[in-house]
Amino acid sequence: MSLEQTLKRILPLDRSVEGAAQARLDALTKPPRSLGRLEDWARHVCLIQGQVPPQLGPKVLYVFAADHGVTEEGVSAYPKDVTAQMTCNFLNGGAAINVLARHHGVDIEIIDVGIDHDLTLLPGLRDYKVRRGTANFARGPAMGRAEALRSVELGIQLAQEAAARRVFLVGAGDMGIGNTSSAAAVFCALTGASPLDAAGRGTGIDDATFARKVAAIEKGLAVNRPDPNDPLDVLAKVGGLEIGAVTGVILGAAARRMPMVLDGFISGAAALLAQRLSPGVCEFLFASHLSAERGHASMLRELGLAPLLNLSMRLGEGTGACLAMGVLEAAVKVMREMATFESAGVRERIA
Amino acid sequence: MSLEQTLKRILPLDRSVEGAAQARLDALTKPPRSLGRLEDWARHVCLIQGQVPPQLGPKVLYVFAADHGVTEEGVSAYPKDVTAQMTCNFLNGGAAINVLARHHGVDIEIIDVGIDHDLTLLPGLRDYKVRRGTANFARGPAMGRAEALRSVELGIQLAQEAAARRVFLVGAGDMGIGNTSSAAAVFCALTGASPLDAAGRGTGIDDATFARKVAAIEKGLAVNRPDPNDPLDVLAKVGGLEIGAVTGVILGAAARRMPMVLDGFISGAAALLAQRLSPGVCEFLFASHLSAERGHASMLRELGLAPLLNLSMRLGEGTGACLAMGVLEAAVKVMREMATFESAGVRERIA
Repeated sequence: MSLEQTLKRILPLDRSVEGAAQARLDALTKPPRSLGRLEDWARHVCLIQGQVPPQLGPKVLYVFAADHGVTEEGVSAYPKDVTAQMTCNFLNGGAAINVLARHHGVDIEIIDVGIDHDLTLLPGLRDYKVRRGTANFARGPAMGRAEALRSVELGIQLAQEAAARRVFLVGAGDMGIGNTSSAAAVFCALTGASPLDAAGRGTGIDDATFARKVAAIEKGLAVNRPDPNDPLDVLAKVGGLEIGAVTGVILGAAARRMPMVLDGFISGAAALLAQRLSPGVCEFLFASHLSAERGHASMLRELGLAPLLNLSMRLGEGTGACLAMGVLEAAVKVMREMATFESAGVRERIA
Repeated sequence: MSLEQTLKRILPLDRSVEGAAQARLDALTKPPRSLGRLEDWARHVCLIQGQVPPQLGPKVLYVFAADHGVTEEGVSAYPKDVTAQMTCNFLNGGAAINVLARHHGVDIEIIDVGIDHDLTLLPGLRDYKVRRGTANFARGPAMGRAEALRSVELGIQLAQEAAARRVFLVGAGDMGIGNTSSAAAVFCALTGASPLDAAGRGTGIDDATFARKVAAIEKGLAVNRPDPNDPLDVLAKVGGLEIGAVTGVILGAAARRMPMVLDGFISGAAALLAQRLSPGVCEFLFASHLSAERGHASMLRELGLAPLLNLSMRLGEGTGACLAMGVLEAAVKVMREMATFESAGVRERIA
């Protein structure tokens, strides 16, 4: 499905089931609202799916890997080839996201959307490479507009695939050395935030590297002049291929009424792009956690989302999303599996 | 094992493994400390167990049910017989704790430590009834000192049993209409907090019920004059049987060097008693969540514990503990299962 068609299919939440959802929550054997945010999330899943109780199903998380030309500016603590090396680690099951996905029963799919390395022989890697990494946005556009669109439509395609599998929760994560620079640049371009406020320490960079990172973002914005009213222009000029793919998953999931769980800072930039393309799309999103990456809190405010967890994490890969998927699934199970006061023969409140 | 013997066996954390634990965390394929509190918790489990990597094993959660004579004062929104009815619900698998325990693979054991109802015929219920509920502490002591000690030693016995099964994480929860009144009274008696600050809305009481609750706690403290320097005296005079049992599990788990996960407000009162009996015991505890029950935040400050989660929950039963056990297990799996930079052939940081 094209981006244009997808945007047309994103409808509002189904408020018609809200009363039934609340009534079911209140009939369960617990004081009303005593499960706090678990109840809020379960009810929200009902509004997304348009049914009470909400349905469970497989959980899938897409990890998008891509390289970033802006690493030429010396903005990261790790060499660029770590993107490809970590992708191999994902395929071998040794990364943090593998451990957490196994723990929570989340299927992960590793997608090459733009690694600057030939990995076509690796079993298990899904090859959707749009190009071998972006160009250095400090010196010109990161990619062409058609490439940006391709990355978004890849994400849409994967969301379609998930819908066909009757996936219950969709998540997305990222791997790309340099990608907090791209995400911060997207954030600045869309919102007018200053690079100094938007940029963070990423994988843990020192002061000199941080100064280069801020300077690179400033240059990127000055050289490319991305149009804040044209999200694809922003994505193409200062974004990244994995950011575009996550944007596509967000839009595609909303069009198919699947709850989508954001990860951290990179997901947040993708969500801002999605929100600019379809203002109501955030209603279909859950913010998994507040990242320790500076700028993430103001990004979430901009999206109007409150994070489920706050564990000082800043790894990416979908690790925050994966933990939150476990909690969201628990919330839905509570709504589906708990007995009611009537069925359990428990007396209701007297006061 | 007696309380006295148990207290002698509680030793400090094993700081000798701290360096090895940190080195292992830093060798894993992720930027140092990028998994935030997950890394802190995994390292802390190493110090409790005295080994690197930490060991996994079964997870068990004890749900202690008991009645409270103070319900005569009209302090709760639910009738007292809901304690017995909810206990049946636990045994039938229909309560929130059942759903969450199944979700996280936690074994739950339902313990009658003082339900004011004859449930001896119920299959699956472990009958350790000390007495049929406490007396109304607003008019005299809740129970005798020997009964209080029995409840604590029951908890110790169950922790011993868990250790024999090589349990990895121990949790405890509670069911007892009226027990936030008892927990608040224990908090006040031990710390000097005022009943108005310590008491909360429990299962969701109205203003008139809340006023009666505060008055009942005030009366309980005035009538019984519990000795703040004698935790067993406090437990006997204004506490509850499930509070004593949780205190015992906390002490018994620490003596056997098992990480113990607190639930909410009732667990917190039990932890305060345990801390007064053995000041170092909090080093073996994880605070699962910040309860929406007023007073819980200051209780955690008193214990020196930071909650893992903050989901506005206030149900009890061990629901908060159970969710946190899932996150703690994930943290330990990360430390055990992730590849290292060396084993995965990933280049380390350059800056």
